[in-house]
Amino acid sequence: MKNVKLTIEYNGSKFSGWQKQDGQRTVQGEIENAFFVLTGQNLSVEASGRTDKGVHAYGQIASVKFDCKIPLKNLKYALNNLLPADVRVTKVEFANDDFHARFSAKRKTYEYVVKVGGQPSAIDCDLVGFYQYDVDKTKIDECIKILEGKHNFKGFCSTNTQVTNFEREIYFIKYHKSGKIFKFSVCGNGFLYNMVRIIVGTLLDVGSGKISIEDVKKALKTGDRSYSGKTMEPNGLYLKKVEYEKTTK
Amino acid sequence: MKNVKLTIEYNGSKFSGWQKQDGQRTVQGEIENAFFVLTGQNLSVEASGRTDKGVHAYGQIASVKFDCKIPLKNLKYALNNLLPADVRVTKVEFANDDFHARFSAKRKTYEYVVKVGGQPSAIDCDLVGFYQYDVDKTKIDECIKILEGKHNFKGFCSTNTQVTNFEREIYFIKYHKSGKIFKFSVCGNGFLYNMVRIIVGTLLDVGSGKISIEDVKKALKTGDRSYSGKTMEPNGLYLKKVEYEKTTK
Repeated sequence: MKNVKLTIEYNGSKFSGWQKQDGQRTVQGEIENAFFVLTGQNLSVEASGRTDKGVHAYGQIASVKFDCKIPLKNLKYALNNLLPADVRVTKVEFANDDFHARFSAKRKTYEYVVKVGGQPSAIDCDLVGFYQYDVDKTKIDECIKILEGKHNFKGFCSTNTQVTNFEREIYFIKYHKSGKIFKFSVCGNGFLYNMVRIIVGTLLDVGSGKISIEDVKKALKTGDRSYSGKTMEPNGLYLKKVEYEKTTK
Repeated sequence: MKNVKLTIEYNGSKFSGWQKQDGQRTVQGEIENAFFVLTGQNLSVEASGRTDKGVHAYGQIASVKFDCKIPLKNLKYALNNLLPADVRVTKVEFANDDFHARFSAKRKTYEYVVKVGGQPSAIDCDLVGFYQYDVDKTKIDECIKILEGKHNFKGFCSTNTQVTNFEREIYFIKYHKSGKIFKFSVCGNGFLYNMVRIIVGTLLDVGSGKISIEDVKKALKTGDRSYSGKTMEPNGLYLKKVEYEKTTK
């Protein structure tokens, strides 16, 4: 039995998210299907975390245990030959026996790409979020300083969650602006449901003046979702990188 | 009766092309439907040319005649409110009565975006073509010089065409390379079926050495399609600009 670590890139726009669901086109479903064709076995391919419908990944990590008899390089080519064009396995490695893509994850970095102001683009409609109002970067910078660090992020997640511990640490929030396109990077030890999309919505709502820095402080202090900003659409969100302790052989 | 000129941007990946067809999602169908909701009339919206399934446009031009009673700026917003996110009307203007998006067109510029070598990207799978082999730019430059100008392009179109006159003039072919991404611009007085995709395939096949400059000369001289290069996939093709004599009021 080998424990194989996969790095996976996908365009989420035609998927109902990562997680396998009957009758839906999902990333997990496509990958497990490719493994079935290759090995004849129903293997369980576990990701670092589920991504929602419409969310993309450059660096999703998954692990799968099976009796791998073909060289890793061939495995990668064989999987890519079986997979549709909107999913690519970019790396395959042997991992330690106790490695698990989800439970071993230490840090995750998400990217959110958004056009701010003007008109949304038809060409990029699946790949770039849109925010209607102009924003003041000074206010965004101020808001980032408040959100970075260890906090109770209950006010920054969707209410339909079964989680009971809302404490998370955000290591950094950075962004780069090019014309009307803002690219945010958010790195933390873990994220609550919709947390990145709400953080970016909060930064933009603070930047446009729709909410205040005081509202953001209240959201952190009280855990009340009504003080934080809007939930951005999934189309601009990318799982960029998942980091682990040294796990590959 | 007003003659209205529309500039339209669309992502072709979820459309069965421009032209309306029963039971298919098409750009023309979506736009005519939006006009029906606005005006209560079944109007005919004519484009500068049909684009195939999967082909995109930054600057498709269409014309439509109707008794337009609302200000042009409002018409644009009203149409965009009714249209899906993958089609945007970027400009509306009143045109001269004799303007017709197709028959009045003088020059068209297409862009073809392609990743050359390496692995195709999952994220950009609908927006960027892929060519497997590395290419020699010197050979591409040499091939461009041969293709520019007025020629019989019968050897550079798909055989399922009803056209009888194959003479077209290519005003220029340019390209810009950034990393593995090549962006070709091809400008001409008109294009045969699949001509841009075959021209780009020919440039790349010459660049990679799969065919020779002599083959390209033979394709031009004999009109034999078997001498020219491959037909590139539609996903990297963009209708960028259609030019007319002065046509707007």
